[in-house]
Amino acid sequence: MQKGRLLYEGKAKKLFETEQENVLMVEYLDQATALNGLKKDEIVGKGQLNNQITSLIFKELSAKGIETHFIKKISKDEQLVEKVKMFPLEVVVRNVAAGSFTKRLGISEGSQLAFPIVEFYFKEDRLDDPFINEQQILVLSLATEAEILQMKKIALQVNKALQELFLAVDICLVDFKIEFGKTKTGKVLLADEISPDTCRLWDRSSQAHLDKDVYRREIGDLVPVYQEVCNRLEKRRDQ
Amino acid sequence: MQKGRLLYEGKAKKLFETEQENVLMVEYLDQATALNGLKKDEIVGKGQLNNQITSLIFKELSAKGIETHFIKKISKDEQLVEKVKMFPLEVVVRNVAAGSFTKRLGISEGSQLAFPIVEFYFKEDRLDDPFINEQQILVLSLATEAEILQMKKIALQVNKALQELFLAVDICLVDFKIEFGKTKTGKVLLADEISPDTCRLWDRSSQAHLDKDVYRREIGDLVPVYQEVCNRLEKRRDQ
Repeated sequence: MQKGRLLYEGKAKKLFETEQENVLMVEYLDQATALNGLKKDEIVGKGQLNNQITSLIFKELSAKGIETHFIKKISKDEQLVEKVKMFPLEVVVRNVAAGSFTKRLGISEGSQLAFPIVEFYFKEDRLDDPFINEQQILVLSLATEAEILQMKKIALQVNKALQELFLAVDICLVDFKIEFGKTKTGKVLLADEISPDTCRLWDRSSQAHLDKDVYRREIGDLVPVYQEVCNRLEKRRDQ
Repeated sequence: MQKGRLLYEGKAKKLFETEQENVLMVEYLDQATALNGLKKDEIVGKGQLNNQITSLIFKELSAKGIETHFIKKISKDEQLVEKVKMFPLEVVVRNVAAGSFTKRLGISEGSQLAFPIVEFYFKEDRLDDPFINEQQILVLSLATEAEILQMKKIALQVNKALQELFLAVDICLVDFKIEFGKTKTGKVLLADEISPDTCRLWDRSSQAHLDKDVYRREIGDLVPVYQEVCNRLEKRRDQ
């Protein structure tokens, strides 16, 4: 598969066309950002780890009946995915209070929520990705009511599947962010990535952060932590 | 009716017990605040105007079949209301983009929204009254799903009634904030006040601000503007 025209360059990935109209190539970059891009570093090895972890997770979701845009991993830092039109939304699912949620609502980090909750953020860098509600999504024409319902439903299915997966490797899934796209036939499809960049993962015994918070909060090196998550997932897969 | 124990002192009102267990007395204060209390001034005449305007509006809503906590105005700056347990929520309805909404979502002030939208804010000064979604309301146990639905339904009914009322006096209802309480029998009841403190009101010809934005944005004197709203509403009532 040939790498074609660069379609999009994000904070941690590049997206290329391929010779197949409906197939894109994702290149995972050795780059970490935080604070909406204000903090930015090259971190050698991160791209390969996120490519591997996302590939593992998307295959797992597929095995559990959740369709995703993922086709296959084709090199250490590249994967092929189905081309979709992305919704300009970040969909966050929370099981345990952490991060911005604790500050905004005055809840201590680590508080278990009575049930998983779903939040939407408007993906717009110049506005700092504001938190929005469903009526705002509708009035801004970012998605239809049916699409919002579908995203919420899939987000909770993904949460259940990921909780099981991570529990099996002694990791607590605190929260995560996913993104969705729309296929040509109008189907809402899970896209983007699922990795320690986009999840909060706490070791179940030590409560250690196994995610991008080690970088955001400057409390450790990112690569060994991501490697640990990758190793645990691979070990489980190979069992 | 005797003024009893002070129950609550807010930014613009005091709430007293009365000799009747289910009846409270509201005293409207000559006080204006903005920026969550950072800006604060005594404004002689404001309390009486808001008492009169809220009384007029709550009677109007009642005539249109929307129940409220309002019982009657008993003096220039006092009214009697039904005692309810307040939800710690501010419910905002928007017809036209203005204020924080425009900044957060990158929409120009004055843009007509395709349909009225409802937003919830968690009334908590120390958190700066954060914007929240329905799942957050549920997980924080601030209201039940049925109560949220009821608040949204009444909020849109109030919007329709207020739009008609203000249109008749050449005022565009841009947005407004209302609050709800729960009666002893569990009924969700419109409470608090509806005044130029809690609504954005623009003159339909001149687009002039006829609301607290003249104070917030320091673009004019508050009293003549509130008096103008009051005069128009009284003139219409007396016709």
